[in-house]
Amino acid sequence: MTSSLHTPLQWHRRHILSLQDFSVPELDIVLQTAASFQEVLNRRTKKVPTLQARVVANLFFESSTRTRNSFELAAKRLSADILNFAPGTSALSKGETILDTAKTLWAMGAEFMVIRHQQSGVPHTIAAEMDRLGTQVAVLNAGDGLHEHPSQALLDLFTLCQLYSPRQPRCELLRGKKIAIVGDIRHSRVARSNLYSLTTAGADVHLAGPPTLLPPEFAKYGVTLHWQLEPALAKADIVMTLRLQRERMDQHLIPSLREYHQQFGITHERLRLCQPHVRVLHPGPVNRGVELSSALLDDGHVSLVNQQVTSGVAVRMALLYLMGSTPDAGG
Amino acid sequence: MTSSLHTPLQWHRRHILSLQDFSVPELDIVLQTAASFQEVLNRRTKKVPTLQARVVANLFFESSTRTRNSFELAAKRLSADILNFAPGTSALSKGETILDTAKTLWAMGAEFMVIRHQQSGVPHTIAAEMDRLGTQVAVLNAGDGLHEHPSQALLDLFTLCQLYSPRQPRCELLRGKKIAIVGDIRHSRVARSNLYSLTTAGADVHLAGPPTLLPPEFAKYGVTLHWQLEPALAKADIVMTLRLQRERMDQHLIPSLREYHQQFGITHERLRLCQPHVRVLHPGPVNRGVELSSALLDDGHVSLVNQQVTSGVAVRMALLYLMGSTPDAGG
Amino acid sequence: MTSSLHTPLQWHRRHILSLQDFSVPELDIVLQTAASFQEVLNRRTKKVPTLQARVVANLFFESSTRTRNSFELAAKRLSADILNFAPGTSALSKGETILDTAKTLWAMGAEFMVIRHQQSGVPHTIAAEMDRLGTQVAVLNAGDGLHEHPSQALLDLFTLCQLYSPRQPRCELLRGKKIAIVGDIRHSRVARSNLYSLTTAGADVHLAGPPTLLPPEFAKYGVTLHWQLEPALAKADIVMTLRLQRERMDQHLIPSLREYHQQFGITHERLRLCQPHVRVLHPGPVNRGVELSSALLDDGHVSLVNQQVTSGVAVRMALLYLMGSTPDAGG
Repeated sequence: MTSSLHTPLQWHRRHILSLQDFSVPELDIVLQTAASFQEVLNRRTKKVPTLQARVVANLFFESSTRTRNSFELAAKRLSADILNFAPGTSALSKGETILDTAKTLWAMGAEFMVIRHQQSGVPHTIAAEMDRLGTQVAVLNAGDGLHEHPSQALLDLFTLCQLYSPRQPRCELLRGKKIAIVGDIRHSRVARSNLYSLTTAGADVHLAGPPTLLPPEFAKYGVTLHWQLEPALAKADIVMTLRLQRERMDQHLIPSLREYHQQFGITHERLRLCQPHVRVLHPGPVNRGVELSSALLDDGHVSLVNQQVTSGVAVRMALLYLMGSTPDAGG
Repeated sequence: MTSSLHTPLQWHRRHILSLQDFSVPELDIVLQTAASFQEVLNRRTKKVPTLQARVVANLFFESSTRTRNSFELAAKRLSADILNFAPGTSALSKGETILDTAKTLWAMGAEFMVIRHQQSGVPHTIAAEMDRLGTQVAVLNAGDGLHEHPSQALLDLFTLCQLYSPRQPRCELLRGKKIAIVGDIRHSRVARSNLYSLTTAGADVHLAGPPTLLPPEFAKYGVTLHWQLEPALAKADIVMTLRLQRERMDQHLIPSLREYHQQFGITHERLRLCQPHVRVLHPGPVNRGVELSSALLDDGHVSLVNQQVTSGVAVRMALLYLMGSTPDAGG
Repeated sequence: MTSSLHTPLQWHRRHILSLQDFSVPELDIVLQTAASFQEVLNRRTKKVPTLQARVVANLFFESSTRTRNSFELAAKRLSADILNFAPGTSALSKGETILDTAKTLWAMGAEFMVIRHQQSGVPHTIAAEMDRLGTQVAVLNAGDGLHEHPSQALLDLFTLCQLYSPRQPRCELLRGKKIAIVGDIRHSRVARSNLYSLTTAGADVHLAGPPTLLPPEFAKYGVTLHWQLEPALAKADIVMTLRLQRERMDQHLIPSLREYHQQFGITHERLRLCQPHVRVLHPGPVNRGVELSSALLDDGHVSLVNQQVTSGVAVRMALLYLMGSTPDAGG
């Protein structure tokens, strides 16, 4: 990072738990910082000493390869040390509470905690406890229940803004763009976080999904709802697809994966409704032939799935860097 | 460590398996070395190159978060490389003997082995085999069956001595202090290791627990036994609580967790029997409301649980450093 | 490495998938490079900055301690960063294809993929896809089904050549040496890879095993087949034993482990048929008393098992180094 990155004096957020109250200037700081780190990642030596000897604890109570590896790599490229907490072999199975586990990691020296949990609110609870104890631990929500997944939405935002300006990504680039989010909105923490950041950025957000997966109350987010795909795709600049959990079928929320694909699956043909330059995102892992046709996923001119993964490392480096730079951060 | 740490010429112990024959000068070297490393941990850059490129193998045949993470962090802060041996996915499930596994790790280049096993004596057996083969591998017992857990007792000793002298912790500070160890003494390797170090340091050690968990033969350690809590607590300077395994109830060794807490659980009220400055330890993970009341555990003026965890990293750095500094150690 | 290692201009192989078409000059480059790295491993500081900040992803779909740890240590000693992919907790359990997992790791920044899979050909498929996408990812086959295990055969070759010239190991040293490979040839990917490298090196290779484990078609490799042990051992310079899977008994391919040992187990007594200086190898983990007598395994004058493990780290450092040095390799 060094010279290319100014100290972000405007940044005061130690925890990153939700995007609900992120301002445009805050989103822009994340985008600019991530762009600087992406330059680092394009060098031959992709490592900076920013967090040398500082400890990032990964607490993934819910399994994940993609997000955990992405954070692990981001932390390594900042020269941090990493503690991986594996719930299966942990003190939790001996009856310890999550808060006591977090306190133990803090007492060992962890300054950052990246937390995924199947229950909404767990990262907030841990962050509140860390603050109450007067620690400087910085907590990042890496996905909590059906609530939020801020780092995913921020990497989506970064990927989208870079479409229009690779070196100067900023929110205003998305103003007025029509973005369709398609699929299982109801159960998606990715969708919720994206709703906050994209509407804050001024995008024209449309949601589409079957009624069982898109309840009417989502209108409160200031977005347009569609229970059919076509009006959502019409003239869209961007289509964001969401992962469909196979268990939704057992819950009778969708008739079958095949029928879902027929109604809401994205294909080259359906994209003809959109702007000619339309691009498609998916947070992964993709069920090929369900949310997206295989041909579309593999079409590098349209699919941004690989760029999202690549952006993820730069964005997560930026988040850890920013969290660690607040006046009262640990160290 | 550099200048602040003298080479401990007096240190000749390559393996750390038991505290039974540790002398006061040896304990004092551990305490002083740990104090030096704790200064490192209070710096912004918490890392030293002491064990750079040397390999520490963690062999945890019994699951553990706390102790394994503590050793992993200690090794990382000494700049060592770490091999984590996960029994579940290992050659052991293919029928390899533990000794052959240890030999393989040695042949790969491991110079330190940190071993936990549910059978007493396994670390000793591996250490003896490593010596027989003429290797310079240093073996540390991280908990073997019901036998010993030396690094836990040493971090307890360090935590206690630092109460009286944070910068110059040494055994003599505990001379004559009344220390009550309360709970499931019978099944506790932590208690056994502590008995050795605390009596060597000259403390006045009292044990308390129900008769099923405190057999009379423990008197041989030169300590006072109590089958009721009150006389153990009377005028005590320190109360060490032990973890109660929930399965003791199924074994009919205790009637119920609730009744155990009523008879031997430590609370603010009960501590009125002790010295006014009394402090409470627990090796973790704690069953809240069983060994300790929740209020007591969270009372930072009395509970030393977090300090124990923090001390653990410094003490384990000291142990790895000392083991690696013996004249015949690997490297 | 630095000065002692010339840039291997003659090396053009980015993937290492099979030894079938390895030439003698290529094998010799591996041997010489490994010898240079072994010198590094004999220094006090066993680390070189060769792959600093480059990412090695370990994808072990089939469990392994030995090979995975060996690669992990090799990568660490080259200063690489490592991503460990654990199939149990992975996106694969969410239905993602292996190719999509590999693409995700590439998009995150992995430049090397070390792949083990129970299906033959998986590493080849991933390598082909990485090439098709125009990535510079280098793929190493760490064992695929019953097909090949090139790094094991290369470490065996290195161990053998070093018997005759520790500092200048090269293929010609094995010309005309009688090498007996004994055991479950049929199910051994180690045997297949060794057949290619040893015959290329000009050794006189003999295979021995019961008819159920040594099908006649192995004659096509230009080797001599024996369904009894004695003629294979007669005047042999080297005996390579293979691991016997216990499940072969349930498949009725061998009558019992005991009977197998009586017919094909290697003991000091049986080695009297061989050259006086005969040495014995085994890829590990060993079933003591089955493939080898316990006494023989522990006889450091005859058994090369520990040297094989030690060689493994140097050879794998050499392979990662060479794969990363091709003109079009990532970075």
